[in-house]
Amino acid sequence: MNAPQKLTLGLVQMRCSSEPSVNLERACAQIEAAANAGADVICLPELFLSHYFCQTTAIERFDLAEEIPGPTTQRLGQLARKWGKVIVASLFERRAPGLCHNTAVVIDADGSLLGRYRKMHIPDDPLYYEKYYFAPGDLGFRAFTTRFGRLGVLICWDQWFPEAARLTALQGAQVLIYPTAIGWHPNEKARWGIAQHSAWETVQRAHAIANGVFVAAINRVGHEGPSDGGLDFWGASFVADPFGTLLRRGSHEDEELILQECDLARIDETRRNWPFLRDRRIDAYAGLLRRWGDSDCD
Amino acid sequence: MNAPQKLTLGLVQMRCSSEPSVNLERACAQIEAAANAGADVICLPELFLSHYFCQTTAIERFDLAEEIPGPTTQRLGQLARKWGKVIVASLFERRAPGLCHNTAVVIDADGSLLGRYRKMHIPDDPLYYEKYYFAPGDLGFRAFTTRFGRLGVLICWDQWFPEAARLTALQGAQVLIYPTAIGWHPNEKARWGIAQHSAWETVQRAHAIANGVFVAAINRVGHEGPSDGGLDFWGASFVADPFGTLLRRGSHEDEELILQECDLARIDETRRNWPFLRDRRIDAYAGLLRRWGDSDCD
Repeated sequence: MNAPQKLTLGLVQMRCSSEPSVNLERACAQIEAAANAGADVICLPELFLSHYFCQTTAIERFDLAEEIPGPTTQRLGQLARKWGKVIVASLFERRAPGLCHNTAVVIDADGSLLGRYRKMHIPDDPLYYEKYYFAPGDLGFRAFTTRFGRLGVLICWDQWFPEAARLTALQGAQVLIYPTAIGWHPNEKARWGIAQHSAWETVQRAHAIANGVFVAAINRVGHEGPSDGGLDFWGASFVADPFGTLLRRGSHEDEELILQECDLARIDETRRNWPFLRDRRIDAYAGLLRRWGDSDCD
Repeated sequence: MNAPQKLTLGLVQMRCSSEPSVNLERACAQIEAAANAGADVICLPELFLSHYFCQTTAIERFDLAEEIPGPTTQRLGQLARKWGKVIVASLFERRAPGLCHNTAVVIDADGSLLGRYRKMHIPDDPLYYEKYYFAPGDLGFRAFTTRFGRLGVLICWDQWFPEAARLTALQGAQVLIYPTAIGWHPNEKARWGIAQHSAWETVQRAHAIANGVFVAAINRVGHEGPSDGGLDFWGASFVADPFGTLLRRGSHEDEELILQECDLARIDETRRNWPFLRDRRIDAYAGLLRRWGDSDCD
């Protein structure tokens, strides 16, 4: 790969309205701002075109889904080509009537749709009813060789699964990029808020460490839903280096454009010093393909 | 399992001398102190009977290996029975002439040798030349049902492998226990010391989070080796809860007996709220059994 040895990430931490056209215009403005500020790879939060609609199960929300390629990827492709930048965007993919996915697209710097990743791990928990909307991904764990480096794309709930990070790193990803929509239940925030955010960041820093890759998470901000409930999206988008060191973190409340240069030579340097990939016991990992360790019943 | 719902860990963070009989007596005194202070499960650091001899490759060090069961497990078994406590201890196991392992034993509260875990991931890096001494473990990843709970035992370098933590958790482990010997190269300490310790703790906290289990690491302290080199073992033994929250951490320099109660009911509570085990994509993890993602050449 002849990609340059440094790339600058631009994470668009944004507030999302209920109106897709408004969100698209605001995202495009931020992409232009990021490109202008020197970002090479510009990343949007999960499902940035709308409110996080999975707080409820409502059949009319399927109207938000769109085909890929479609009008949004076309628009983003134009921007990518205009500025010569890579864009990673998360969309509600309509694959067929009654078959939708939570999908991230990678648009290369020439404007072409390089590929897509369909979210593999689908949550289903109070106010995150994603199993209603999204079929589980069927494309596996993927990395994409862009003009600026080889990027692995995963989405939100995937963050909690070391298997997803490992498999994507084994595809040669240099940066794991996680478009995200995660927030606090307001009534849990006082008691659990700090620990929840810490767990979220910690588990992703650990993916960086265990795999010797950069990790970037891009979250939305702001309250969505009823004033006596809903979700407070916690922002705190960040970039960690292959040692797990936090290079930059956004605020919990504000829209923010987060720029961070990543020196890709750090990957080889880190892995030489802590050569975990050398020592994996692939002969002894078969149990990872099982649901649980009770060998007599699954 | 009818084990009580709370158990108290006792981590013996100790300095080790070159003399096995001295280390054994000091460890036994600490075990008695821990038992007396209310610990149920008492854990010793990796290879506590000697200096960390893997700093060099020296054939006479194989004299330190002993059979299991052997004199040390016999002595520890007597203590376990006397106090009605579980002991987890790391030993240099002589399995046959020319065949040794880095092994941890679990001694149940009745003094019986419940089982052993042979370190699966073996490091081999400057001053950690373990591949010279230890054959890789061949017993797989294990958990042991003791009087006080189901314990998973892993050893040091295993800490960096999410696969090891996952497989042990899938065996039903409630606590992952990592006897450890990790330290700073003195000449790297100023530049990398904080980041190295942080990575080590972070990756283990992430095992707690990803698996919804308690994690305990027991490290030695003190400088070993030549005064112009060697290793500064960094202590900082700790216990994290299933949310990854640090419950207690020892100092970097001092011998210390670390006592921490673990409420095992927290495991179910945490996993109900963040049900990662429900959503693993075991249909899509086959690549974890491969060394790398280049499917044409391995």
